[in-house]
Amino acid sequence: MSDLVVVLVEPQIEGNVGAVARSMSNFGLSDLVLVRPCPLGDEAFRRAKHGRDVLGQAQRVARLEEALRGIDLSVGTTGIPSAKERAFHRRTVEPGDLSEKIERTEGRTAVLFGRENYGLYNEELDRVDLLVHIPCDSAHSVMNLSHAAAILFYELGKRRTSESAWVPDAADESERETLLRALDELLVASRYPRHKRRRTRVMFRRLIGRATPSRAEFHALMGVFRRGSKAIRRLSGSRGPGSSS
Amino acid sequence: MSDLVVVLVEPQIEGNVGAVARSMSNFGLSDLVLVRPCPLGDEAFRRAKHGRDVLGQAQRVARLEEALRGIDLSVGTTGIPSAKERAFHRRTVEPGDLSEKIERTEGRTAVLFGRENYGLYNEELDRVDLLVHIPCDSAHSVMNLSHAAAILFYELGKRRTSESAWVPDAADESERETLLRALDELLVASRYPRHKRRRTRVMFRRLIGRATPSRAEFHALMGVFRRGSKAIRRLSGSRGPGSSS
Repeated sequence: MSDLVVVLVEPQIEGNVGAVARSMSNFGLSDLVLVRPCPLGDEAFRRAKHGRDVLGQAQRVARLEEALRGIDLSVGTTGIPSAKERAFHRRTVEPGDLSEKIERTEGRTAVLFGRENYGLYNEELDRVDLLVHIPCDSAHSVMNLSHAAAILFYELGKRRTSESAWVPDAADESERETLLRALDELLVASRYPRHKRRRTRVMFRRLIGRATPSRAEFHALMGVFRRGSKAIRRLSGSRGPGSSS
Repeated sequence: MSDLVVVLVEPQIEGNVGAVARSMSNFGLSDLVLVRPCPLGDEAFRRAKHGRDVLGQAQRVARLEEALRGIDLSVGTTGIPSAKERAFHRRTVEPGDLSEKIERTEGRTAVLFGRENYGLYNEELDRVDLLVHIPCDSAHSVMNLSHAAAILFYELGKRRTSESAWVPDAADESERETLLRALDELLVASRYPRHKRRRTRVMFRRLIGRATPSRAEFHALMGVFRRGSKAIRRLSGSRGPGSSS
């Protein structure tokens, strides 16, 4: 997994630079290089929020070459997708492809963002190893600089943060079986029509299969089913066994 | 594939509202609802760029309920991931999971974004079918409103055609509400502890939100809950009202 360096080439609006710094801190990034940036004042730092350290420690350079020193893979961002650009050296990849690529890359990867009004110049685009384009509505493909950055940081961060899986503490197979038995008990106790029980049980198994309940949800559902069955048994039991038939 | 409605609840900074509108237009979205927004002036429209039509046509409402009228699936956004929140009714899904979910949902999906400083209030979070959290650095998980929005629009805009996951005849919002009422009746009838009822109801709403039950599954679950409640009522009724206390 490659280290990520964020390079803003001639950013013109200080608020955007601050917003990018904020977004970097959201995704645990800290390496920011600014090539000939606009003056950065209060507005930039105000927008940076908890990313003000990232902004304060940003390296400022006069030429793109300096930003790319020691970089193993350089990636340019563009608002123009390959489909519009016939030239094969303008072929773009999607953020998800870039993410895979970076994962397989050692060393340092630089992601370059261009000017708000013009993006990266052709000679800059020619210098990068990869071009990435964020798929969007073709009529309005010019994205705010910090939005494009946030989307890329998110996509590139996915693999790093993906331990935070869909269900942190999923109920296991035996708990799901226990839950199905509790459902069964309720079906029997409530005299749910016998010929419908099997498919209701299967239906519930599938529903649970799709929803992937956590252990806490398993316990809550168990509580619902068990209380129902118990209430019925308690009430019928107190009237004697004959009354439940 | 569900239609997407973007709902901003009490946004406080007009520039953010404009930035969200711009981002919507980047991803071909146009349906914006503002619940009690801050005043929107030049700054909002300046930031909206080519999304100024989206902003100009935004619907303004006084209450969240109005924004959710006619919505089939409601999704809340939160900066707090499930892992931090032990409470199971605060379980979150990732944007990619949400994208899949929306792909197999018919009708209209509302994505709610809360206040810049506070997010969505608890009673607002309780009302939604799903909670989504953007995985990020846990030390700096508070994201700019329009960044979070841009990331979700990007992720939801990715086309995934997993037809196997498609539920052809999903239960609609009113059926899901009916199901929740049937659960409530069972909780009351079985004397499920009062203080646990709210979170069990929210938990069940979320579980159903994730599982996307079909109409047939809805009817089967209704049958399970109703039969349980009826059995309890019948049995307690036959022993006189006093005996159930």
